[in-house]
Amino acid sequence: MSEIQEIIQQLIKFRDERDWQQFHNSKDLSLAISIEAGELLELFLWKQNEDVDPQRLKEELADILSFCFLLAEKHQLSVPEIIKEKIAENDIKYPASKARGNAKKYTEL
Amino acid sequence: MSEIQEIIQQLIKFRDERDWQQFHNSKDLSLAISIEAGELLELFLWKQNEDVDPQRLKEELADILSFCFLLAEKHQLSVPEIIKEKIAENDIKYPASKARGNAKKYTEL
Amino acid sequence: MSEIQEIIQQLIKFRDERDWQQFHNSKDLSLAISIEAGELLELFLWKQNEDVDPQRLKEELADILSFCFLLAEKHQLSVPEIIKEKIAENDIKYPASKARGNAKKYTEL
Amino acid sequence: MSEIQEIIQQLIKFRDERDWQQFHNSKDLSLAISIEAGELLELFLWKQNEDVDPQRLKEELADILSFCFLLAEKHQLSVPEIIKEKIAENDIKYPASKARGNAKKYTEL
Repeated sequence: MSEIQEIIQQLIKFRDERDWQQFHNSKDLSLAISIEAGELLELFLWKQNEDVDPQRLKEELADILSFCFLLAEKHQLSVPEIIKEKIAENDIKYPASKARGNAKKYTEL
Repeated sequence: MSEIQEIIQQLIKFRDERDWQQFHNSKDLSLAISIEAGELLELFLWKQNEDVDPQRLKEELADILSFCFLLAEKHQLSVPEIIKEKIAENDIKYPASKARGNAKKYTEL
Repeated sequence: MSEIQEIIQQLIKFRDERDWQQFHNSKDLSLAISIEAGELLELFLWKQNEDVDPQRLKEELADILSFCFLLAEKHQLSVPEIIKEKIAENDIKYPASKARGNAKKYTEL
Repeated sequence: MSEIQEIIQQLIKFRDERDWQQFHNSKDLSLAISIEAGELLELFLWKQNEDVDPQRLKEELADILSFCFLLAEKHQLSVPEIIKEKIAENDIKYPASKARGNAKKYTEL
């Protein structure tokens, strides 16, 4: 079993011990990701870029990742594969020659 | 090299070919996660729970995960470890006996 | 009719001409607010604090406000009243003497 | 003074009594809007569309609106005007004849 599959198995075990699968539809999992992303963002509110509590960063990041992994598993998506595909797409959208040192969105390149 | 470390290496290669590390401070990486989470959410707007375009789901999920992995790497956090720690914490916050079949937040259990 | 009630009437007219009330349940209106807030945030991604396109700022802010007004109307909430109540609450949570010049959350004051 | 200008004056008074203007740059105000939108969303997590605590709905909506009003004021935008302009734009993007009873995005109409 791969590293990510092993994490997903632990998340599923935790979920099923609480009989929570009934709540984990795709829309609510996406809400959960967005809510946790807001909690991560809150750690930086009114602060400088690197001024963050490392313990809380760890926890919020773990929450977002957990819901992402559960949503990927629900749709039988392989995390390494979908990221590799997206990198390949972005390689075309953001050619290194044009995008170098430039944070513009591809639609504005 | 582990599966996740390998993905992170590919993300870093993509980033460095474009000289984008200068933009990837922790606050903006967190903004990026939140923005991409909003794009995932948009796939479900005004729709039923499972009514989603699978191709776009894949892409938005890949975007969120990519920025999460880059933020984890920036803070030298091991993704499997932080998720395992969070599961252990949640095991205490949400005891299976109390939380079974119940979607309440731990503060309301 | 008050200024805000007048705006809300225009939003309702726009909505009803398209027969969209059927989609505007409270949960999806909240998703819409969150999605539009993500689009506002995107204007600042990888950028300095005031480096923003004023035209797009205007549009994203209008979108967020529109969905907020529609959600308030759905729950028969008066916008001026709920803000006044919240200011009164925050006045207690964040006493000026403690909070002056200090961006900490009330739980950390 | 208009209704909305009066609310904004109260928000500014609250802010200035705490000397918080220094934190209220446009980027962080946008973060605040997004964070509060996430808190609104949390009220609906794992729940049916109308299953919401009315007191908390009121509070979260007031928070989002307050930061929106402060951001509008910072950019000298008139809230009624920017919403009217957006309705006029959307009137073109979403012609009633095409959009009636249809929740598709304008790009898919």
